[in-house]
Amino acid sequence: MRTLYHFPLCPFSRKVRVVLAEKKLDFDLIVENFWERRRAFSALNPAMQVPVLVEPDNKVLPDSYAICEYLETIYSENRLIGYSEVESANIRRLVSWFDNKFFHEVNKYLIHEKILRYYTRVGAPNSEAIRVAKANIIPHMEYITFLTEENMWLAGERITLADIAAAAQISVADYLGEVPWDSYPAVKDWYALLKSRPSFRKILNDKIPGFAPPKHYAVLDF
Amino acid sequence: MRTLYHFPLCPFSRKVRVVLAEKKLDFDLIVENFWERRRAFSALNPAMQVPVLVEPDNKVLPDSYAICEYLETIYSENRLIGYSEVESANIRRLVSWFDNKFFHEVNKYLIHEKILRYYTRVGAPNSEAIRVAKANIIPHMEYITFLTEENMWLAGERITLADIAAAAQISVADYLGEVPWDSYPAVKDWYALLKSRPSFRKILNDKIPGFAPPKHYAVLDF
Repeated sequence: MRTLYHFPLCPFSRKVRVVLAEKKLDFDLIVENFWERRRAFSALNPAMQVPVLVEPDNKVLPDSYAICEYLETIYSENRLIGYSEVESANIRRLVSWFDNKFFHEVNKYLIHEKILRYYTRVGAPNSEAIRVAKANIIPHMEYITFLTEENMWLAGERITLADIAAAAQISVADYLGEVPWDSYPAVKDWYALLKSRPSFRKILNDKIPGFAPPKHYAVLDF
Repeated sequence: MRTLYHFPLCPFSRKVRVVLAEKKLDFDLIVENFWERRRAFSALNPAMQVPVLVEPDNKVLPDSYAICEYLETIYSENRLIGYSEVESANIRRLVSWFDNKFFHEVNKYLIHEKILRYYTRVGAPNSEAIRVAKANIIPHMEYITFLTEENMWLAGERITLADIAAAAQISVADYLGEVPWDSYPAVKDWYALLKSRPSFRKILNDKIPGFAPPKHYAVLDF
C-alpha cells in the first residue's frame, strides 16, 4: 500500500494529499510529529521533513516538489501540471510563489508561533511574528483576487497544482483563524470551489489536539 | 535572442545561467536591480523577482523552478534532472533542499544584511542575523560532505541540477566571504569540480559595485 508520512497542518503534506486524491490514488496516512525527530523517520528522510511518500514498491520519496513531479510523470491521467510547456511553466511559477513566498511570509510564522511553540512548550506565541504574518497575507489575498479575475482557477480554466498549492497554504492559515475572508470575496468564491471537491474535503476534517479551527473552517458555505 | 534578467548575486539567477550554459544555449544578460521596482520589469514579472527568462520567441518565463523544468523539457540534451523517475525525484529533492533550506537559512540573511541594506541605504548589517547565517551554513556543509562520500556529484556519477542549485547558493555565500572552507575539504573538492566548468567560470567573474569578493573566490585552486 502507498503510505504518506504527513503532519495535518503542514501545507506541503496537504498539497500532496490533494494531488494523490485528484489522481484517484489510494494511500494510508501516518502522522509524523517531525519536531520529535523520531529515529525511524530520520532513516526515511534525513532532512526530517514531511511529507514523505512511500510508494507500493517501497520507493521512498521525500519533498513535495519531487513528489508532485513524480506523480505527474507516473500517473499522467488528470494532469495537474499542464498540457503544454507554456502552461506548465505558468503553473510551476505559481506553485513556487505559494510554496515559497506564501509559506515563508505567512505560514512559517503562524506554524512556528502557534503550533510548534505549543507542542514543544517553549512559551507563548510571539505577537510581533503573528502581526507580521497578518500583514503579509494581504498581498497574497490581492494576488489571488487578481488571478481569478480572468479565470475561474488560478492558471486557467481547470484546476491545477497552482490551485492546490495555494489552497493548501490558505487552508492552514484558515485553520489558525488568520484569513481575512470578508475583504476578499473573489478569494472566497475560488476557495469554495476547492472546498467542495472530495479531494479537499478530507483534509478539512482533520483536527490536531489542542487546536480547534474556527466554525467556518470546514463549512462549504462560509 | 534569448535574454535573462538577473542579479549577479541572486543564487536562483546563477542556477539558471549555469543550466543555460550546460545546455549550450546562448543568451544575453540584463542586470535587474529588483529592489528598485522598475515599472518595465514589473510588466514582465509582477512578482518583481529575478530570474526572468525571455525566450527567442518572446515567451516570458519567471521563476527558476519553472525555468529549469521548462529548459529540461524543451532542450532535453545534456539532461540535468535525471534519466529515470527515481533519479529525477532524488535530484528534485536536493534542488528543493538547497533552493529552500539553504537559501532561507543562510543566503537570505546574507543578501539582506550585506547587499540590500547597502544598496537601499537602510543602515549597517544586523550582526545577529549574520551570526545566524554563519551558524546555519554548518549543517549544509556537513550535508554536502555526506552526499559526496559515495559519489563525486551530489546525486550520483554525473553533474545534475542538484549540484548546480547547491553550488549557486554556495557561490553567493562565498562571494560574501562566509563559507568555512578549511573545515570541509570534501565540499572544497566537490566545489572545485564546479568551478572548473566553463558554465560556472562566467558567473565567478561577475562583480557587483561596492563589494569585492575574497581573493580565493574565483581561483580554481583555492
